[in-house]
Amino acid sequence: GRQRLLVQKRGALWRKFGFSAEDYRELERLALRRAPPRRRQWKFAGSFYFAITVITTIGYGHAAPGTDSGKVFYMFYALLGIPLTLVTFQSLGERLNALVRCHLLAAKRCLGLRRPRVSTENLVVAGLLACATTLAFGAVAFAHFEGWTFFHAYYYCFITLTTIGFGDFVALQRKPPYVAFSFHYILLGLTVIGAFLNLVVLRFLAASADGSERAARDPSP
Amino acid sequence: GRQRLLVQKRGALWRKFGFSAEDYRELERLALRRAPPRRRQWKFAGSFYFAITVITTIGYGHAAPGTDSGKVFYMFYALLGIPLTLVTFQSLGERLNALVRCHLLAAKRCLGLRRPRVSTENLVVAGLLACATTLAFGAVAFAHFEGWTFFHAYYYCFITLTTIGFGDFVALQRKPPYVAFSFHYILLGLTVIGAFLNLVVLRFLAASADGSERAARDPSP
Ligand SMILES: [K+]
Ligand SMILES: [K+]
Repeated sequence: GRQRLLVQKRGALWRKFGFSAEDYRELERLALRRAPPRRRQWKFAGSFYFAITVITTIGYGHAAPGTDSGKVFYMFYALLGIPLTLVTFQSLGERLNALVRCHLLAAKRCLGLRRPRVSTENLVVAGLLACATTLAFGAVAFAHFEGWTFFHAYYYCFITLTTIGFGDFVALQRKPPYVAFSFHYILLGLTVIGAFLNLVVLRFLAASADGSERAARDPSP
Repeated sequence: GRQRLLVQKRGALWRKFGFSAEDYRELERLALRRAPPRRRQWKFAGSFYFAITVITTIGYGHAAPGTDSGKVFYMFYALLGIPLTLVTFQSLGERLNALVRCHLLAAKRCLGLRRPRVSTENLVVAGLLACATTLAFGAVAFAHFEGWTFFHAYYYCFITLTTIGFGDFVALQRKPPYVAFSFHYILLGLTVIGAFLNLVVLRFLAASADGSERAARDPSP
């Protein structure tokens, strides 16, 4: 249906202007090249950006290694980089949680509580607020810098920080201060999300890993 | 430079055929629509495939929610689905590790060892072999089904199972048996990788989380 309609339309235009197949191919090439050019893709900032999308497993796909040797290199790079990044963000997240715990304790003491205690529930609520704030702040910033709507910028931040990285929205590298902002936002955002996952998910995983460890140590024959 | 050249070429073609801006825009639209059609993208198999790429955070981006309500839905879907998937794969991975441990123990007993023990090193070696086998098997299968070279199919499997998911290679949905194979390969592959990460990375994370937990329980004022 749709394909047939396209062929009909093309035929009508060909007849109207009487251009050759060669001319038409030229026009097609011109139209396709109007798509936003991949400028400065592999200069320093672009490559740095790409490397970040690899080790964080965001993988927008706005850039990908074109040559086979590049593919081999990035496979080894990911093999080393992903586990290191995972451990780094979890470790940073833990420290962030400890910091928040300290501050909440101090705040409770200031409020005059006798024996202040910071429960895990307190931390989870603080984590949720931090995640929501990070997303909202990112949405405002990227909406401003990229000219997206607030909703689309929020969607971009969400898809980036969950490391899904569809690549339908990609904050592109423009002027150096903005590039630096993008990198810092992604890395700080992933720390906040990592801290929250550390609090909520790692607890279960660690407990269950601990259990299976114990079972393995004392195996029933 | 390049942009200016394109504008010049376009000008030359405009003069040659004398078409209006409206006609040109029509031609551009036609040319852009010649890009391969997204057939059967949102039928059952395609949608299932897409949902898998969301909850596993692969996010190829070969398909992405087009409407705003779709974006909202998939954000909530990811919010629930990603943590559940994470916990599920880690739990499956643990069971897989326990199974391998049992089999190694039985094998060592068969070989006549008096007091057979399975060390973590044994498990790590078994895990590395399992990961390599999974990638190689996937590479052979996808090279056959998609007509890719072995290297490109291997690269596809690697980028998929690390959940980077650039989307430069995407195993597309074709005939039902192949679709089912794709899904099972991705889910089984992620279980194998999850088991290995459980063995190698989670150990550190759990130990360090345990330490910070203890520190939080006995806070120094
Ligand atoms: K991706
Ligand atoms: K991804």
